[in-house]
Parts: sequence; structure tokens; C-alpha cells
Amino acid sequence: MRHPRPKAERGVRVESGHQRKLSVYRRGLASGTTPEGWLAIEGPILFADALQLAGEPATSASVIDGRLKIRSVLVTEREANRLVDALRRLPADTEVNLISERLFKRVAMTESPRGIAALVELPHRDLDATLSHADVLVMIACGLQDPGNLGTMIRSSQALGGTALLTLQNTVSPFNPKALRSSAGAAFRLPIFTGLQPESLLHRLRGFGIRIVATDRRGDRLLTDEDLRGPVAILIGQEAAGLDEALRRSADARVAIRIRRDTDSLNAAAAATIILYEAARQRGFRFDEPV
Amino acid sequence: MRHPRPKAERGVRVESGHQRKLSVYRRGLASGTTPEGWLAIEGPILFADALQLAGEPATSASVIDGRLKIRSVLVTEREANRLVDALRRLPADTEVNLISERLFKRVAMTESPRGIAALVELPHRDLDATLSHADVLVMIACGLQDPGNLGTMIRSSQALGGTALLTLQNTVSPFNPKALRSSAGAAFRLPIFTGLQPESLLHRLRGFGIRIVATDRRGDRLLTDEDLRGPVAILIGQEAAGLDEALRRSADARVAIRIRRDTDSLNAAAAATIILYEAARQRGFRFDEPV
Repeated sequence: MRHPRPKAERGVRVESGHQRKLSVYRRGLASGTTPEGWLAIEGPILFADALQLAGEPATSASVIDGRLKIRSVLVTEREANRLVDALRRLPADTEVNLISERLFKRVAMTESPRGIAALVELPHRDLDATLSHADVLVMIACGLQDPGNLGTMIRSSQALGGTALLTLQNTVSPFNPKALRSSAGAAFRLPIFTGLQPESLLHRLRGFGIRIVATDRRGDRLLTDEDLRGPVAILIGQEAAGLDEALRRSADARVAIRIRRDTDSLNAAAAATIILYEAARQRGFRFDEPV
Repeated sequence: MRHPRPKAERGVRVESGHQRKLSVYRRGLASGTTPEGWLAIEGPILFADALQLAGEPATSASVIDGRLKIRSVLVTEREANRLVDALRRLPADTEVNLISERLFKRVAMTESPRGIAALVELPHRDLDATLSHADVLVMIACGLQDPGNLGTMIRSSQALGGTALLTLQNTVSPFNPKALRSSAGAAFRLPIFTGLQPESLLHRLRGFGIRIVATDRRGDRLLTDEDLRGPVAILIGQEAAGLDEALRRSADARVAIRIRRDTDSLNAAAAATIILYEAARQRGFRFDEPV
């Protein structure tokens, strides 16, 4: 078996005794974020996504401070062999920690860990700069509890031309490990703002002239009758309970997706995806044009 | 605390020693089905859905043999108290087994079991009768592996006017417990046919004059340009690998959902939901009209 020599080449420290670092990774991978606000990610797919974005120039005007940065990598020797080309593309100052399979298993959250984890700093984004774009399409998760649903909503937003995803207080974290996996890397790309306070957010949206549309199975108009072409923010309620009544009433419109009469509702991420698709359709799918 | 007296009222047998029955439930709840092909379901939400359908007349012409039947119920005393009205609505010949919380926990698959499980027989359905409806809209899951995705696809199909869901061989079971939960009861309503062989199915669909549309991110036409108003079957590929190349080529059309250029793909259930919505939109959302 050929071994690359990352230690000599890249200043890798073999840290099998380094308990503090392992504990940062362990807690980071369990919750999704570190105390510094960096994302803790695991597995070669998310790592490849992060690496690709780390090498791309920032494309969005809402990005204030450069690009995504990989702050630290934790890798087993076997995975370092497999990923040797990828690891060489890391900036010289990225900390790379080589550890044993046995220790990696103690840190990993997945059942069959693949031997690579990293701490990633997302570019700093500014909410006002994001909201001031012409024709913004902002999804607002209001109390969603299922991380898979939130991750899928992020993936659909990124794919279908959403400008940003916002979450209110009491909503599951979009950087929760399961949400991150469901987003399939879209959480690295789409601007995300979390833990917002409802009244002040609605006030801020109105200040930017953004129309606020609540989704509601008892909505007074159908989605297909709603004009989604201007700047718009969509409120998506909690899986079972739907939208909070005060929020529902404070929206500029309440729209329903027409479904079979004998059917209760759609999955929250499926409903959000339909709204994003309908908005993209009405806007002529022009999301690849420069803003 | 008031106790109902289901034993005297309904011929309930207290079966704490009945190992064979518990083992049928345990294995059924683990896999989703019993050797007889009945669904094993757990929790008050699915139970209420099943009970509601058991009381409704069959509405679909594809249903050959009556309505859904609840064959057996396993319930703790505490839950029997809570559900006493629901249990009274069961037909007199339904077997109801009262067991202790301790034994129920050994049978249950959920982390915080709610003390109610049941064995449910779905109405017998006929594939040819289903396919012969005018303007059928059939979703075909081709190799999907994630039960949550398949369950969400069933829920969206039922809500947006799909006629049936079919699965090919090598696809996760739609009656897998996680798929059943994600379908939110839609798996009881929507006609479902599993484990079909691709060539003979395509031949059968063509025999009924059904247009076969493959979803494919490299599709040669956009979804919005495709006429989905006639009888149509939609092939949905596996989450990561997409559609098998032979299947892809054998379809009458290959359509793509337009997404951002820098984005890889949508979640499989999200893509299926968009196609169902686009079909419903083109068909004027007329799915509540009698067929």
C-alpha cells in the first residue's frame, strides 16, 4: 500500500493524544456548530462541497467577507490516502490533523464513518444587503422541527432561485448535521440567517418593500392566482401545527396549494418546493442571469 | 381514574403470555408487513387514519375487494382508555389484544411508544383496472432507497391527484415503517403496486396508451414544455445514481426541471412533487371531480 506523506508535505500534526481538539470535533459534529460558529461537517461528500466552494470567488453581493474557509481537517490515514489530491488543494495555513481510525470512530456521528471531518467557516453575510436585492425570493421557516425538512427546503431554495433562507426563533437549526446532509451542500451556498424575532423581521421586510405571503391550507386564495414575481417572502409553518395565528394574520396574503379534498396536507418541504417552483415558473426561470 | 371495560364490552383477550402474537407484531412493526401481507402500524395517528378509512366506502374503481380492514389491535390499558371511542367503532370481529406497557415497549419500534399498534389489510387492487382509467397519472419509483423520500412521494401523489404509485424491483418498500410514517396515511389511500419488473411494466403501460416520461437532469426538454395532460407515467430514478440508462432510453421523453446552473440536483421526492404539481396545474387541478 502506497502512503502519501502529508506530514512532511503539509505540516500535519499527528494528534492522537490531543483530547481538547477531539472534544471540539465531537461536540461540533453532534450539534453541527462549534462555539466559534463554525460548521462541523463529516464525510467526503460534504468535504468535497466545502473544498470546491473554498476555491470559488464569492458570487453574491450579500457576501461581505470573502469565501467559505476550511479552518481545520480531521482525517484518518486511509482517507488521507484516498483524498490526497483534495487535501493538497487546501490553503497552506489550514490545520490538518491525522488521527487513527479508532479515535475517528469516537468523534464521528455517522454509523459507518468515512474518516474525514472538517470545521468550516461560512462567509459572513449581511441580511440588509441580501434583502435589498431586486426581486428577492426569501423563504422563512417558522418553527419547523424536522431537520430533514429544513435541509430539503434549503436544497430546493438554492436549486430554484431562492435568494436566502431565514429561520425564526424556535426553529430547528439549518446547521444540524441531519439538516446539513439533507441540504446536500446547498447550506454552504445559500445565504442563511437564523433565530430571527418575528415582529422585527416582518417590519424589516416591509421596510424593503417585500410582500409577505403566508402558506396556509385554509388560505383565502390559491397559489396559482398569486403574483410571485416581485420581491416576496414566503412564511412556512411548523409541520403539524402550521403557522402561528398572529403571523398568519400579519402576512399580506394567505395562499393555499390546491390539493385533493380528502387529503390533509403536504409535507412542509414539499409545499415549500412547490411554492419555489411556482415562483420560478412565473419569473421565467431567469435565476442564472447576473443580478 | 376511570377505566373503560373493553374486556366485557368487546371480547378483549388479555394476552400478556401470548408470545406468538407478540412476535408477529414485533416482526411486523420492524419490517412494516406481516407474512400475510398485512401492514403493521404503530401509534395513534396512523391508527386513526386506518380507522377512518375502515369506515369509508371504497371510492376508487381500481379497488376490487371492498375497503381497508383492521384485522388486529394491540393496545395498552392506558391507551385503550384514551382511545375508548375509537376502539368502540371497530367492527365486532376485530381482534383486540390488551397488553401491559412493559410488553408493548418490547414490541414497539418507536422510541417513545404510544401504546397502540394494529395489523391492517389494504383493499385488494388491480393494476390493469387502475391503468385503464382515463388520464391516469402514475408515478414509478425506480430504485429509490430512502424510505422517507418514497413516503413523501406517496403523500404528494395522493394530495396532487396521482392515480397510483408503482415501484420497480430493488426499490425500498413503501410499507417500510419510515415510509409509512412519511406518507402520513396516504399509503392507505393511494393504490400502490410493488416489485414490478421494468420491461413487462413498460410493455403493459404502452398497451394502455400511457406516455412514459423519464425525469433526468440531462433531459432533452424542460418540464414546462412537456404536455402532461394525457395518460402519463413518470419514472423517478434512484437518489444518487438517477435512472438506469436502459430505462432512461426506453422512455417516450426525458424531461428536466430547470434549476440553477451551479446546483447539482433536487431531492428525489422534491423533484417528484414538482412534476405532480406541474401535471395538476396543466390539468386544471380537476382531481376532485368524479372519474
